[in-house]
Amino acid sequence: MKKYAIGIDLGGTYTKLALVDKSGRIRCRAKLPTSAYKTKEALLTAIVAEIGAVLKESRLTLKDLAGVGIGVPGLVAFERGLVYYLTNVPGWKNVALKKILEAKLKVPVLVDNDVNLMALGESRFGAGKGARNAVCITLGTGVGGGIIIDGGLYRGTSSAAGEVGHMPLKEEGLKCNCGSTGCLERYVGNRYIVDEIKDKIKSGRATKIRELLRGDLSLLTPEVISAAAKRKDALAIECWRRVGGRIGVTLSGVINLLNPEKIIIGGGMAEAGEVLFKAIRDTVKERALPVSGNAVKIVKARLGNDAGIVGAAALFF
Amino acid sequence: MKKYAIGIDLGGTYTKLALVDKSGRIRCRAKLPTSAYKTKEALLTAIVAEIGAVLKESRLTLKDLAGVGIGVPGLVAFERGLVYYLTNVPGWKNVALKKILEAKLKVPVLVDNDVNLMALGESRFGAGKGARNAVCITLGTGVGGGIIIDGGLYRGTSSAAGEVGHMPLKEEGLKCNCGSTGCLERYVGNRYIVDEIKDKIKSGRATKIRELLRGDLSLLTPEVISAAAKRKDALAIECWRRVGGRIGVTLSGVINLLNPEKIIIGGGMAEAGEVLFKAIRDTVKERALPVSGNAVKIVKARLGNDAGIVGAAALFF
Repeated sequence: MKKYAIGIDLGGTYTKLALVDKSGRIRCRAKLPTSAYKTKEALLTAIVAEIGAVLKESRLTLKDLAGVGIGVPGLVAFERGLVYYLTNVPGWKNVALKKILEAKLKVPVLVDNDVNLMALGESRFGAGKGARNAVCITLGTGVGGGIIIDGGLYRGTSSAAGEVGHMPLKEEGLKCNCGSTGCLERYVGNRYIVDEIKDKIKSGRATKIRELLRGDLSLLTPEVISAAAKRKDALAIECWRRVGGRIGVTLSGVINLLNPEKIIIGGGMAEAGEVLFKAIRDTVKERALPVSGNAVKIVKARLGNDAGIVGAAALFF
Repeated sequence: MKKYAIGIDLGGTYTKLALVDKSGRIRCRAKLPTSAYKTKEALLTAIVAEIGAVLKESRLTLKDLAGVGIGVPGLVAFERGLVYYLTNVPGWKNVALKKILEAKLKVPVLVDNDVNLMALGESRFGAGKGARNAVCITLGTGVGGGIIIDGGLYRGTSSAAGEVGHMPLKEEGLKCNCGSTGCLERYVGNRYIVDEIKDKIKSGRATKIRELLRGDLSLLTPEVISAAAKRKDALAIECWRRVGGRIGVTLSGVINLLNPEKIIIGGGMAEAGEVLFKAIRDTVKERALPVSGNAVKIVKARLGNDAGIVGAAALFF
């Protein structure tokens, strides 16, 4: 078996790529500004050139590669390597990405959803190492998820599995972007958390967030709320407890359904740290069935922004 | 490969067993009144005797069996064949059922949860035939579930997966038997449906249910509500629509998480028929993400009370 693969994480802002060895170590990396390329053809040409550069720098050739794995922020037909659409990257509709890149590179190419690959990366080389069954969620603008079963990715019937963010938190609730109502994401997605805090500040709640922002509420982000929580700000702590409680309720359902060994939580919001994780764990303890609740470990993702590229390469290991 | 197995469904009222061939056909069957046996030893001795009788009647011997599969209503450690406890069958705590029966029978024995085996039976030989990924739920006193992945049972880390009934329908809701709040089962379990209807009748709602029961509300069961719904009784129809809506909300979450090919619905309440299934399907259409919602078929279980015994035998095929 070949010892190297290229992992690519195609994002709305940056496209990151790296040469990864079969122990999950990144040997050489590169980064492209996705939106600077006017067409997808231009972006793909630049990606191919960067792969060449990374290989040259590592004194390797395409022949040394097991393959090229690429994660994209959207819906993919994994078997065919077809990208149905990308969220936040215009111009990508029904793109036969696997076929296009294989024609250019002459090495095997696999295409998958980016959160799936983050889950695969964490389960092989990160916080989920050794777990046969795990669920990985990312907390950010949206709430994504990936499912590991028997050590491999579970993709479902249309490569669409893992949408933890669109599981119902409430039977009847607020309208979600997806068209449904009451979805977890509608209550814990970045912008909704920010809006909730803004409303409370506007209605006069005392908080250190005001000073941190020097009064400019438009600059409020989850990072600022986390910074305030670390300074023991009551409003910020209360926010993460509420968010953790909501995530914990939905995860209790996931845990009762799948009885996983690990839940791995990543994404920007995971940086809120212990206050968030404690609320999640306490809620799971209270709500999940004891057998499954006691069996699961809820841990923070460990590979950070590299999980996606490492997971993309791991498709070949 | 041997062509026959014994399938056993150990229930609180009856223990059913059958000789099943590898195409899932029942060749010969027997039934024991579970609660008539004072101890589990007495019940197991009777089961062994019945296996002998069924084999004799079929002109076969233990040597013709691939094995004996047994489904029980409770929590089981599948690999070890250990029954942790049974719901509604007293005296079963930490019973090494596989070991005990293998010592008596000298053939391989496998022990699993009864709803898991119903799911396996339906997926191999019933409504789920051909589906690689499916979720099977049973609607009755409780709401149980079993998960089929890649054609086989998915049991999770502690053989406890599939608890669809204890997924949260509401973030904050009524106290459930399991210790949590807002669980689906707390809103659609038999007794809760019956109680809701009784309350409405007592508060004066006109309904055909009254005549069907000749005024004796204590006789109300889901079957009576179904009978009234078939006679176009508004209260009964409204009841099944509400129940179907609730089940549909939770199933939308299951569908968004697992993107299954089929959802198979069995148990007594499934007999409510089209009015219930239409409400479930309409809700899934409204709430699930389109890709996964369009990919899934929601169907009624087909093997009825035989699903468990056929599934128990299917552990060997």
